[in-house]
This record gives sequence, C-alpha cells and structure tokens, in this order.
Amino acid sequence: MAEITTVSPLAPEHFPELPLIEGVKFAAVEAGIKYAGRKDVMLAELVPGTTMAGVFTKSATRSAAVLDCQDKIGQDSDAGAAILVNAGNANAFTGKNGVSSVKAVTEAVSACVGLPEARVFTSSTGVIGEPLPHDRITGKLEELKGKLSANAIGDAAEAIRTTDTFAKGAMRSVSIGGQTVKIAGIAKGSGMIAPDMATMLVYIFTDAKIARADLQELVSSLNEVTFNAITVDSDTSTSDTLLMAATGASGVAVDRDETAFKGALHEVMRELAHLVVRDGEGATKFVEINISGAASAEDARAHAMAIANSPLVKTAIAGEDPNWGRIVMAIGKSGARADRDLLSIRFGDTLVAENGWVAPSYKEEDGATYMQGQEIAINVDLGLGTATDTVWTCDLTHGYITINADYRS
Amino acid sequence: MAEITTVSPLAPEHFPELPLIEGVKFAAVEAGIKYAGRKDVMLAELVPGTTMAGVFTKSATRSAAVLDCQDKIGQDSDAGAAILVNAGNANAFTGKNGVSSVKAVTEAVSACVGLPEARVFTSSTGVIGEPLPHDRITGKLEELKGKLSANAIGDAAEAIRTTDTFAKGAMRSVSIGGQTVKIAGIAKGSGMIAPDMATMLVYIFTDAKIARADLQELVSSLNEVTFNAITVDSDTSTSDTLLMAATGASGVAVDRDETAFKGALHEVMRELAHLVVRDGEGATKFVEINISGAASAEDARAHAMAIANSPLVKTAIAGEDPNWGRIVMAIGKSGARADRDLLSIRFGDTLVAENGWVAPSYKEEDGATYMQGQEIAINVDLGLGTATDTVWTCDLTHGYITINADYRS
Repeated sequence: MAEITTVSPLAPEHFPELPLIEGVKFAAVEAGIKYAGRKDVMLAELVPGTTMAGVFTKSATRSAAVLDCQDKIGQDSDAGAAILVNAGNANAFTGKNGVSSVKAVTEAVSACVGLPEARVFTSSTGVIGEPLPHDRITGKLEELKGKLSANAIGDAAEAIRTTDTFAKGAMRSVSIGGQTVKIAGIAKGSGMIAPDMATMLVYIFTDAKIARADLQELVSSLNEVTFNAITVDSDTSTSDTLLMAATGASGVAVDRDETAFKGALHEVMRELAHLVVRDGEGATKFVEINISGAASAEDARAHAMAIANSPLVKTAIAGEDPNWGRIVMAIGKSGARADRDLLSIRFGDTLVAENGWVAPSYKEEDGATYMQGQEIAINVDLGLGTATDTVWTCDLTHGYITINADYRS
Repeated sequence: MAEITTVSPLAPEHFPELPLIEGVKFAAVEAGIKYAGRKDVMLAELVPGTTMAGVFTKSATRSAAVLDCQDKIGQDSDAGAAILVNAGNANAFTGKNGVSSVKAVTEAVSACVGLPEARVFTSSTGVIGEPLPHDRITGKLEELKGKLSANAIGDAAEAIRTTDTFAKGAMRSVSIGGQTVKIAGIAKGSGMIAPDMATMLVYIFTDAKIARADLQELVSSLNEVTFNAITVDSDTSTSDTLLMAATGASGVAVDRDETAFKGALHEVMRELAHLVVRDGEGATKFVEINISGAASAEDARAHAMAIANSPLVKTAIAGEDPNWGRIVMAIGKSGARADRDLLSIRFGDTLVAENGWVAPSYKEEDGATYMQGQEIAINVDLGLGTATDTVWTCDLTHGYITINADYRS
C-alpha cells in the first residue's frame, strides 16, 4: 500500500471547531481492522426521540452494511439510535459472511448500548472482498461505550478515514424563532468518487426536532445538488452512505419547508461534498463546472459530468493548460443536446469561445494565467434553454496514479 | 508539447508488409501544418468505379471535415475518388472558417486530380480550435499528385500520426471462387479513444468489387464489434472517421453475405482497432474484457465499458494488482443488470470470485502472477442470461498523465 504522507494542497488549514450537538455522543478506538496505530472504529450514540434519514449508493453490488441500513432507515421508532463505522475493510462482496458480520456487529452493539437492533446502523469502508474481522470490532464495544463523550466528534472524523489525507467536518448554526439550531457533519472519501453516490461516508447531526419523513425528504433532495454533484474519478463505491440524525434536543421543531434550516443543511452538505473533492486522490486543483442554457436539467447534468469526468479535461487542468478544445470535445460526447455554434465557454469571467470558435477577445495568456490558480471555474452556456447545473471535481494527476496503482482498496 | 520519444511497449515489432491494392495510389508530403521535419499530409487517389463507405464520430461538436464526408458518403458515383488527410490540426470548433477551409481543400484537390468535389473526402486530426492553414495543404497538391504511387501506403500511415508512437497497418488476403481479394488498412489514434467512435482515423482499401450499400452495411456492422469496442480514456473525438474504398480492380464481385470477405474485413478492422489500443497513451498492458451471461447485449456492453473505463480498474492493472474488488465495483456502477451473488470473475483462466465472494480455490499469488503479463483478460459471467460482449482497453499509467498534462491536442 502506498504511504499517503502528504495532506492535499486543497485541504483547509485545520479541522473546524464543531459545536456540541445535544443528544449525541461519540467515541473512537483503535481496533486494528487493517491499520496499525490509529483509530479505526467510531460509535455515535443518539438519544431516544432521534429521527434518522439516509441516502445510499445505487451500486448493484452494494455492501451488506448498506443493505442493512436501507432496510432500517425508513422505520419510525421512539428508541434512541447508534451508528458504528469501521475503516480498513468495506465488508463488500464478502458473500454470506458479509451478512453475518453485519449481524454480529449490530447484535453486539444492540446489547452493549441497550437499543433494538433495528436502531443500530453500521458502515464499513476500505478493502473490498476480504472478510470483516468483526470480532475486533465487537471486542472493543465496551471500551467505546466507556469513552462516549459529547465532544469527541473530531475523533470520529479521524476514525472513518481511509485514503483521506485530512479529516472532514462542517457546521452551521441557524436561528429559528429566536432559538438556535445546530448542525454538525463529518465525512470521509477521496477516491472512487462519483454520483449515486460518491465513495463516501457522511454523518450529519442536528439538535432540531423534525419528523423522519421530512428529514428524509430534505436529505434526499439536497443530496442531488451536493454529494451527487461531485466526482473525482467517475467510479462509484459499493458502500456509500449518508446518515443524518436529528436528536430534537434543542426543542426547536422544524419541517421540510423551514427554509432557514434547509439552507443551513444545504451549506453543511455542500461544504462536506467540497471537502471530499478537495481530498480527491492526487488533486491539486478544485474545479467548479457551471452549465447554463441547457435544454433540460438532465442535459445540464450530462454536460457537466461529461466535462468533470473527462480524463483529457482533467489532465489539461493538471497541466495548467487552458485547453478549451477538450471542453468542446466533452460537450460533444456527452450525449446531451448541444449546438456547436451556439455554445460559449468561459474560464472564470474570461470569455474563451463563442459562435463555434475562439472568441476574438480571448488571449491565450489570459487563459494560461487563469489556469495557474488553485480554484478553477469552467462556465459553459449551451444557448439552447434555461436549465442550469453545477458540479465539482478535481484535476487528474500523477498523484492519482501513484495512489491507485499501489493501494489495494 | 511533450516529446513522444519512446514507442509503446505494446507495439508490434514492425509495420506490416501491406499488399498493393490495385486501383489506389498514395502519396505523403511535409506540409508543415504543425510538425516540422515529418510528413503530415497524405493523398489517396482511387480509380473510377470505386465504391466508398464510412462511419463517423457521433460527437455533437464534430468537425467540418466530418460533416462534409457525411454529406458525401451516401452518394453513388461512377467517378473515382480521393482522400486527403492532414495531421497537426483538427479543424474542429473553428466556426465558419472550418467550413471554408474544407471547401478550399476539397476544391483544390478536385481541380488537381480531376474529380468532382463530391468525390473528395478529407480528414483533419490534431489541435482543436485553431484555424487550419489550408494553403499549406493546397500548396502541396501538385507535389502530392506527382508522388502518387501504388506502394506508398506506408508513407500514408506515417503521415496521419499525431501522438501515435508507431504507424498502424493491417492486411488480409482471401480466396473467393479461386481468385484473390486483398484488403489493406491504415489507422491513427492513441488518445481521446472511446466508442462513437474512437479518436481515430482509419482508411481501408480493397480490390473487391462491391456495391456501395453492401460495403456500408459491412463496415457499419463490423464497426460495432471493432472500433466501437475499444476505449483508452472514455473520451470521444470530434474528428473520428473510418473510410473504406473498394476499387473493384480485382474483378471479384462480393456482397454483404460473402462470409470469407466479411471475415477478412472483420480481422483487418479488429487488428487496426487493437493497434490503436496498443498505442493507448501511456499503455503498458493490453486488456481484453469478456462479458458473458448478461441479460441483454446492451447490458453486456454497459458492463464491459464500465470495467474498461474505470480509472480504478485501469490503475490497478497498471500496478499489477489483482484487485478484483474494483471489477465488482465497476459492474455495480454500470447501471446494467447484475446480481452480486450470481456473477463470477476470472483473470484469464483463473477463477477469482463467484457466489458473491472470493473463490475458495483462488490464491492471491496466482492473480498477482497473472497481472504481471502484458496481455490481460478479464472474464466476467453475470449468470443472468446468454448475451456476450468483448471490448479492449489498456491500463492507466503515469505516461497518460505526462502526455496529456502537457500536450495541447
């Protein structure tokens, strides 16, 4: 396995100060699942009255833990809840053993923290196809329970990392009717990142009081414009999971139409999604692709993803080459409607191409200078309609090859 | 621009001995389109009675030359024909100038060799978005005409190269009713290679006598299982063109049902397609992906291409890592039908996974040894139906990044 010794150049300076979310406690321990000398299992315990929502990978080969979570997530319950996550082993494509490992872990967590099994959610991330040494997890449950603490969310964020070069967290506070509601989330993911969903684990906590169905509706709709709008390498994990828990401990009731809450949750989810891209394997540039003037929303997304996933576009960005011809190529191959002579392309604010050719005002050196930045915006107007979309990706570098030609994930 | 100094390790030892095809002559010259000190324009002249067929990129941003060829290819004619190709400039996304450049070249070729303009086919390959210096081409037409020779197909193969590290040719002879029919083809392409079609230019010549509609039917159907079944990087060119010319000079008449001719043409097309993959930018491994047991032909192709285009699969192959978990991942994300517990995966003949898990007989060292080979076969049976498919690709290496982060194509 390649040693990941350096932090992504796109990483934030430090892990954010996350607020305490009343009603949830965290613990993380070293269980030796695969890695030595680091925390690799986290537990979150949630108070009775917590509502849960989630979105999951659409992979046809999804893991046993994902299937188990999907079975449970739509059920109402007055009990508390627990989330247990291990890094180092994805417990994916492990046949019947995969199912029995999930059962062993959820039964043990259920017994340890005194919750119905239906309220124990697990995730596993790491190597595919190797049996999960679940006894290393269950053997640590008492230690985890003993360490549960309201202010250990940072430890949890550390414990869920695999090839991540930094731990990822985001928070917002929002005032609703004069009272404060807090949202805090953590995420992992840096490769095998593409929609439906990215190779990610995401856990978001709030002290708002919200019905399960409303929480699910908010999470599902915001997921489309956040985690499903990022791609690192077009590959999709078998294990992607986003779980959101609302403890209700603030006493502040919200619903799906509470715009302040929705806005804050949107920001937390987008920030976490961006952090995953910023930790894209080998990434040196953060790239935003804005599509406007598309004939439909589906077309807008197809064009955006064709550009974001094009190896030739991504290597050009890595090389700081303002190669707008490759953007034209990607639009052409997307399968969505485009008219060569109506589309325009901008690098940031600089008009590069329009009317089927390079813009008369465009100077190659302006494009080259722009591409030297660490944050790149590619803005494409199709000139066909009114649909828009935005997705985020990173460049494709030698670092990606180095990490993935050696790392057995 | 990165210097491409080394020949692909997957290249054949030498350019093949291509037979003379009666009824066609070739010439190539240095026109200085972009490159210095190398031939970059080729002309092929075909005798009256020649039938032509072609397939072209489906890109929505296809080049002016492609649009011009598409207009002409379906027309019957008793006149001869000419094919003129330049490397170094794709004349794609060049607005109205693109159209007028094609017109200038086809008019000049028409006048020079005495053919109707409707029988002059052109292709351009290279940089997108820069005006084609068409006067450098037209200024060389008399020289090209003077050099026309029956045995200069090798020069033509050299002249159409861009990032290609070797010239590509293939031939077959086939006996039909006691008489010999010959087929010889040349191709270029190494990056921006994906179906519909690959970034390729392909020119195939035969002395068979065949009606235009029959030739088109053969070329279109064989294209699906040859050039549309290869991918290097999932990117699709604006300029892809395959032209086939049948001079009829052998006097041997064939039609679309002549299996010996169809078989030989299939072999020439597949060999040229494989050569493009073998020159995939940065390629060190030639990879064949065989899908069986799929629920439909579309599903089989979707699974095959999901595996072939997965950056994580391709980097694992580059790293000689028998990472079958990434193949499971690619199958899962393809969108086509799959059942995790019914599929099986083999590396060559070695059974790796079945029944939703690693095969009991599989030894990691067997997989690791297999991956050290230069020719890799990934064989997946979905266990769902009877549909099959085969596609070819290469690995994803540092070489790809080096070439594409620096080369302005």
